[in-house]
Amino acid sequence: MTGRLIGVGTGPGDPELLTLKAARALREADVLAHFAKRGNNGNARAIVAAHIRPEVLELPLLYPVTTEIHRSDATYIESITAFYEEAAASVASHLDAGHTVAVLSEGDPLFYGSYMHLHVRLAHRYPNEVIPGVTAMSGAWSAVGVPITQGDDILSVLPGTLDEAELARRIAATEACVIMKVGRNLPRIRRALETAGRLHDAIYVERATMAAMATMRLADKPDDVAPYFSIVLVPGWSGRT
Amino acid sequence: MTGRLIGVGTGPGDPELLTLKAARALREADVLAHFAKRGNNGNARAIVAAHIRPEVLELPLLYPVTTEIHRSDATYIESITAFYEEAAASVASHLDAGHTVAVLSEGDPLFYGSYMHLHVRLAHRYPNEVIPGVTAMSGAWSAVGVPITQGDDILSVLPGTLDEAELARRIAATEACVIMKVGRNLPRIRRALETAGRLHDAIYVERATMAAMATMRLADKPDDVAPYFSIVLVPGWSGRT
Repeated sequence: MTGRLIGVGTGPGDPELLTLKAARALREADVLAHFAKRGNNGNARAIVAAHIRPEVLELPLLYPVTTEIHRSDATYIESITAFYEEAAASVASHLDAGHTVAVLSEGDPLFYGSYMHLHVRLAHRYPNEVIPGVTAMSGAWSAVGVPITQGDDILSVLPGTLDEAELARRIAATEACVIMKVGRNLPRIRRALETAGRLHDAIYVERATMAAMATMRLADKPDDVAPYFSIVLVPGWSGRT
Repeated sequence: MTGRLIGVGTGPGDPELLTLKAARALREADVLAHFAKRGNNGNARAIVAAHIRPEVLELPLLYPVTTEIHRSDATYIESITAFYEEAAASVASHLDAGHTVAVLSEGDPLFYGSYMHLHVRLAHRYPNEVIPGVTAMSGAWSAVGVPITQGDDILSVLPGTLDEAELARRIAATEACVIMKVGRNLPRIRRALETAGRLHDAIYVERATMAAMATMRLADKPDDVAPYFSIVLVPGWSGRT
């Protein structure tokens, strides 16, 4: 009998936004795996800290590279692919030994999450389950109390890495949008929103639902300093009843 | 002292996908409000049934109209607007009396949820909080174990009510998409996916995460019978590592 692989969404940051199912998975797991940078336990583990059993075996999966290499660089791709292969092999050895392995994923595991790199390598070989979580974007619009979509609104989730003209075109062609990966892309995002005529609707949110959360109208933000995982919201629904 | 208004996301259907924070809000509320059709307690209430305290005051908010009137009809708009005004007044009377009122919302309250109609009428007048929930779409892609987006993928959330050419154009212009409100729009959605060259990637999911969940490749679905709240997923991420 092999063990079970469980992808566990931890939600956006507030530890209370964990689901009952995720809390149960943490109680039942033999092994708790999480992705992190070397020297840093990672956000996902911090979110669930209160639910970690002292006797669980922890399996940190430490990224070999960080932002100093560009993502399109061949060395980066080779290194990160080898890392995911090793991480999958390490998790597989626990599954082969009959252990249930919970893999933490911030937000929702299959929505821009690292867990999916293990899932595509292991889910066809082992019994598995994915426990969805509250996404960072849901955490953001709830924290600021802004209805994002209603009725027949279209929502576009756009990476801030798109080029400016493409970003402006897509912002103008949707009722609501969420711009992810803001960080150093903020000046370009700001210009694209201006071009699309939506800058005055845009809301900037960093560290949604966490103790250090900050939010303001983007038009009022005096600088372009933003953490990588900050988000810009453009609500589709504004006062219609 | 007025009471607090709390919008409570119940998640997609599996009662275990409630968050710890939502469960606490249900323990602490004096009044539990939920939207429903007459003669039907509604899905949201069923999802949280195990958490309802016997001594809580229940406040069902019963829709006056159903699908027999078209949504663009002036009578419908007038009737539904009057209903939201009355519902807000009813909730407000409890808040004025110092009661904490939890309003249930399936999925995530500010993402296509009815709760927002109360929020926009009351949030500027009373202390309030929105507790985000796992969306139906996260429930759907997790239940089928399909990574929806990764890296710089764009996700488009599209209503199935869009006309066929527009739907096809938008499906072709995105990496990943989620088509909501499938129901009787399924034949048109199917044709639009075919036109966009994505029919073979599309996955049909009804009643995601509930006991009666059904899912299959849309291309394998032999009929066009679908409940209104079924979903079609087109994953953006397919096998890249």
